[in-house]
Amino acid sequence: MSTKQKQRARGFFQEHTLYPSMVVAKAASPINKNGFTSPSSTLNLDKGDPLVFGKYWKKKSEECMVVIKGCELMSYLSDTSNVCWYMLPELKDAIERLHHVVRNAVTKDKYIVIGTGTTQLFMAALFALSPSMTTSHPINVVSATPYYSEYKDQLDLFCSERFQWGGDAGEYDKNETYIEVVNYPNNPDGTIKEPMVKSIVEGKLVHDLAYYWPHYTPITHQANHDVMLFTLSKCTGHAGSRIGWAIVKDIEVAKKMVMFVQMSSIGVAKESQTRAAKIMGVICDGYQKFESIEPDQLFFEYCKNILRERWEKLRRSIELRKVFTVAKYPKAYCNFANESFEALPAFVWLKCEEGIENAENYLGKLKIRGRGGVRFGAGSKHVRLSMIGTDDEFTELIKRLSNAKY
Amino acid sequence: MSTKQKQRARGFFQEHTLYPSMVVAKAASPINKNGFTSPSSTLNLDKGDPLVFGKYWKKKSEECMVVIKGCELMSYLSDTSNVCWYMLPELKDAIERLHHVVRNAVTKDKYIVIGTGTTQLFMAALFALSPSMTTSHPINVVSATPYYSEYKDQLDLFCSERFQWGGDAGEYDKNETYIEVVNYPNNPDGTIKEPMVKSIVEGKLVHDLAYYWPHYTPITHQANHDVMLFTLSKCTGHAGSRIGWAIVKDIEVAKKMVMFVQMSSIGVAKESQTRAAKIMGVICDGYQKFESIEPDQLFFEYCKNILRERWEKLRRSIELRKVFTVAKYPKAYCNFANESFEALPAFVWLKCEEGIENAENYLGKLKIRGRGGVRFGAGSKHVRLSMIGTDDEFTELIKRLSNAKY
Repeated sequence: MSTKQKQRARGFFQEHTLYPSMVVAKAASPINKNGFTSPSSTLNLDKGDPLVFGKYWKKKSEECMVVIKGCELMSYLSDTSNVCWYMLPELKDAIERLHHVVRNAVTKDKYIVIGTGTTQLFMAALFALSPSMTTSHPINVVSATPYYSEYKDQLDLFCSERFQWGGDAGEYDKNETYIEVVNYPNNPDGTIKEPMVKSIVEGKLVHDLAYYWPHYTPITHQANHDVMLFTLSKCTGHAGSRIGWAIVKDIEVAKKMVMFVQMSSIGVAKESQTRAAKIMGVICDGYQKFESIEPDQLFFEYCKNILRERWEKLRRSIELRKVFTVAKYPKAYCNFANESFEALPAFVWLKCEEGIENAENYLGKLKIRGRGGVRFGAGSKHVRLSMIGTDDEFTELIKRLSNAKY
Repeated sequence: MSTKQKQRARGFFQEHTLYPSMVVAKAASPINKNGFTSPSSTLNLDKGDPLVFGKYWKKKSEECMVVIKGCELMSYLSDTSNVCWYMLPELKDAIERLHHVVRNAVTKDKYIVIGTGTTQLFMAALFALSPSMTTSHPINVVSATPYYSEYKDQLDLFCSERFQWGGDAGEYDKNETYIEVVNYPNNPDGTIKEPMVKSIVEGKLVHDLAYYWPHYTPITHQANHDVMLFTLSKCTGHAGSRIGWAIVKDIEVAKKMVMFVQMSSIGVAKESQTRAAKIMGVICDGYQKFESIEPDQLFFEYCKNILRERWEKLRRSIELRKVFTVAKYPKAYCNFANESFEALPAFVWLKCEEGIENAENYLGKLKIRGRGGVRFGAGSKHVRLSMIGTDDEFTELIKRLSNAKY
């Protein structure tokens, strides 16, 4: 490992002090179970726990119910005729059906590989796409700034001889092969980006499409890339289930990803697989058995309305104070919703005005914890806040932002 | 990475041809769902899919039933006041209760960390116990021969600058700190082993107690080590749930393990956590509400009887043919069962007689697929076979072994 790598790894450990950041602040959440608010506690909007969709699922609670008996789902194996031998056939079918309904990604003639969240699949994809360990250099993994901070965190922590964090894709100028991660739409800033590396050397692409769903962003086309990652957490809000899936073009890449998941966790919990299949089925039933449900009660419409309402409130609050600015997203036609709309990202990417140098610190004084721009490779004038927490958290955010003064 | 490490990694890939070994043979399983047997297909007893306990859980199917509604278990977080913030409190309680009932491990004043199977926790433990990446050498991870082959496989595949496979613990003679993995009772050979490294340098220990349960082996004492690993797969047979747990003495080690699980999968599927808690609860209820159940219908007694019957049949078959030998385990007093018995391991470790050089190949001719001794750091005269498959598989094993001729 290079000295630089070691320094990075040390830096990560110091910053995180080896303790999950989500716990430290969350433990002192200002909102208790009854919605009671304590103004002196910090409101943690660092992570994106997607509880916003909970009220939809409360309505659908019985319909989505799964019942698992004592003798069911016992084997390691699920479908040994499939490359992804630990995947339940019902989950494969549900994933394909959901993409067929939403038309956000091509699944035909591709392989589906599931993982314990996209987190595991991201590493599996890097593992599968990097050259074998016989080469002397680890491959550079790059992503355009502002990049999703957890890509870098994972690579810094799991430093390997196969791959290493290579920084901003827009700045990549090495004459070496690389892997570029394209987060589409982008986290933290919600923009639509294409691959950025301009190199004469051929690179490989991983598309993280966690937010390419019609409650967050217009579905303008069916994505059709070599490796596409999706996660239940951001699609339906069931983060506790730890279900991610990859749609993979090349069978050899799919096999290597399966090998990675096998060697790191011998597959994926079947209880959550069966539940994910059920939930996806209920969403699809809504669209395919249209007569039985009011249009505004369909999953993506219902959730888009919640997000739209939140974004409107947030923008009004931001505009009123003039302390922060937030980008305006262009309207685009959504093939799924048959209407044009502006993106409604899961996070807001705030930029503070002249005179304030550190957006994260500024919010800290308002007892709002966000994730500072530096973590995303951007400057300290930016900060990211979750827009997908509970209603109580969002209401408290708007209240606290009203104390911002310039 | 050293040339040796690279060669090992290459070797692993070649051997596995990047495809899960369990699939290749399992796809051609000689036993279909209806128990129909095709003599020309290979019987795969390489892996230990623990379906043997399925018939117990069939009896308890309703009692163990879990019902999960659409709006439940959505958050990433479970209990932010616990070091292991993604662990459901009900699972923590169930794990402690189970160890309290069986008295096989001390949980008092320790930390419980759960993972997606022990597979993930094994890597988490190595990560937590290895020095930070600022040192120049990766730490050696050793285990006494015959060692559990998957330790080595994992380390060869996930070669890192933090740790590397260091071979047989009994041969370790470097003047460098190390981590010794003690598999107790040992997989593949079912023996009871103590730490083997004799070094003036202080090492760290990981105890893998996957099989330290009273259906497999006499519970002679309450294990009380720094890091102890357990898995639902081998305890109850629910391998599909991917639930493992570690009992950890030092809070700093526990925190690092949690960090590893956070960064590699953001926790563990909650559906399987809730089900694991339910299943453990049903086992404990049997022992603690003793009047409601016949003694031979208690989980560990019922399963021990199945394993005892299988071992008797297997030993008779082996003794009759004189092609293989299998070790005799010493009787020991089990504090849990209040009786002495010989170990009834989940795998049989066969040794072939003089004149046969390769036990794995010999079995291959009988259309039985085992895992050869070389994978465990032992010679080719040994082979490991699963004893915990379905009844049909076991019956077929005995039938095929009857064709062995010397």
